[in-house]
Amino acid sequence: MVGVGGVGGYYGSRLALAGFDVHWVARNDVEHLRRNGLVVTSPKGDVHLTGLAVSGPDDPLPDTDVVVVATKTTANPEVVAWLADRLAGRACTLVVLQNGFDVERPFAEALAGPAPDVEVVGGMSFICSARTGPGVIAHVDYERVTVGAFVPGGVGEAAVAAVVDDLVAADVPTEALTDLVEGRWRKLVWNIPFNGLSVVLNATTAEMVTDPEARALVRSLMLEVIAASVGTGHAVEEAFIDTMFHSTERMVPYAPSMKLDYEARRELELDAIYAAPLRAASAAGVDMARTTALYEQLAFLDRRNRAGG
Amino acid sequence: MVGVGGVGGYYGSRLALAGFDVHWVARNDVEHLRRNGLVVTSPKGDVHLTGLAVSGPDDPLPDTDVVVVATKTTANPEVVAWLADRLAGRACTLVVLQNGFDVERPFAEALAGPAPDVEVVGGMSFICSARTGPGVIAHVDYERVTVGAFVPGGVGEAAVAAVVDDLVAADVPTEALTDLVEGRWRKLVWNIPFNGLSVVLNATTAEMVTDPEARALVRSLMLEVIAASVGTGHAVEEAFIDTMFHSTERMVPYAPSMKLDYEARRELELDAIYAAPLRAASAAGVDMARTTALYEQLAFLDRRNRAGG
Repeated sequence: MVGVGGVGGYYGSRLALAGFDVHWVARNDVEHLRRNGLVVTSPKGDVHLTGLAVSGPDDPLPDTDVVVVATKTTANPEVVAWLADRLAGRACTLVVLQNGFDVERPFAEALAGPAPDVEVVGGMSFICSARTGPGVIAHVDYERVTVGAFVPGGVGEAAVAAVVDDLVAADVPTEALTDLVEGRWRKLVWNIPFNGLSVVLNATTAEMVTDPEARALVRSLMLEVIAASVGTGHAVEEAFIDTMFHSTERMVPYAPSMKLDYEARRELELDAIYAAPLRAASAAGVDMARTTALYEQLAFLDRRNRAGG
Repeated sequence: MVGVGGVGGYYGSRLALAGFDVHWVARNDVEHLRRNGLVVTSPKGDVHLTGLAVSGPDDPLPDTDVVVVATKTTANPEVVAWLADRLAGRACTLVVLQNGFDVERPFAEALAGPAPDVEVVGGMSFICSARTGPGVIAHVDYERVTVGAFVPGGVGEAAVAAVVDDLVAADVPTEALTDLVEGRWRKLVWNIPFNGLSVVLNATTAEMVTDPEARALVRSLMLEVIAASVGTGHAVEEAFIDTMFHSTERMVPYAPSMKLDYEARRELELDAIYAAPLRAASAAGVDMARTTALYEQLAFLDRRNRAGG
């Protein structure tokens, strides 16, 4: 499990509790995790895992069947280069469990030469969880994973099935996707409005779905994502918008990950969640005017925020 | 002069200094203005006007040749009803010196019955100025007024020429517009991006024109306003965008009036500056997607801001 944040820390702990042999790669918390383990608070019950096998980015990577990338996409240039080195010549499944669009591609391209037997699959996590301190993960609501082959119809399908089986065995609701790209658009139907607007409007999901104009804007942004999915040949049905509103209304009021990143003055995942889908839509001739405007606002805010302004 | 804020206070003082007999109508500062007069700080020289003739909304309105409405558009429902009562049966020129689109219409409609001899003209002010306290107006940069007849080609043209003459005599650069609606679109080319984004991004005009993504968004919003002006038959040329960028770059870094209103938790002029132009564009079949998104963000922020949230 590469990355011990809200996503990696949570799913890794579920796998470990189910008896899987989990090795953790952390960037900052290596010593803390070795000494104090990992605390996960959750509606499913709080757990404290100790005796973790943890390494840092400079350590060797043990041989494993599956490598899960659960870092922020903003670290991908580093993580891709690091994995291309560590996985050279190996055979395993690489699950890119990240937000955004086409995030698997740089991994697949970098590994094709040095590690042709690594199967790249994409994963998406639907969960309200966050790292709230060193070795502490707060799981608040939801948990679901979808997994799909980056190259559809290829040998990756078997790898996908194995990953689904493992997560289901760890009590994580998980589904295989027949069309990973459609799945990515589906997740963006939620992420594009709520992640960005939570930052720009300094608002929770609950505030946005109850205010008439904010809700109208969320819906318009969702319609743009649907249009992009249709235009790129990976159509998400328009009725999915209502599904997203209903599940958001049932959600514990919650600050999306981009809001937490902004508050901590971390780089926002703008390329994966906005720029990459905008490029794909533009290549397909689909205009996403409101999404472009939101992206430009976020780029301005992110730049100023990290400059300390 | 109805309204003694950044606009009314400034231009009224210029007229008074030029020897025009100015009567002031204020809402809150009546006693203060009577006792202490009006201080205007300006690059043209600071002035302190005393012995002002000031009345409140409950007082009679003296007979005047020209009534200038220089209040915020958010007060228009009250101001329109008040003027329809005070101007009944009179003959004079009413200058609606306000931001926004089609702001003259409710005045013209309300006066048509009780005061058919009032000529309604529209005015726009290009100025960086604000009321910074009771009886204190800070003029920071620029000053220019444009005036046009609400009913083109009618008898209002003579009224327009007289208003222009008066303001020019008061050392205020002023021009008559042959097409008031085109003039209103022209002003919105600046107001729609900069007023709204200054609130949403908590940014100055200088920050917005120097950041690449914010500047791109400003330009896209300006292009939508141009498209709406073309679609409604009052075309503003696209080159006007560069003119606006150049004058903004030369401007003293400055918080637009909407930003000041937001910080003071006053109601934002969203109907005049956003909703009314959006209705006109929509009626002409022009989609202003980014402007709509910005309006919806502002409606959310304004509502929460005034709720004290």
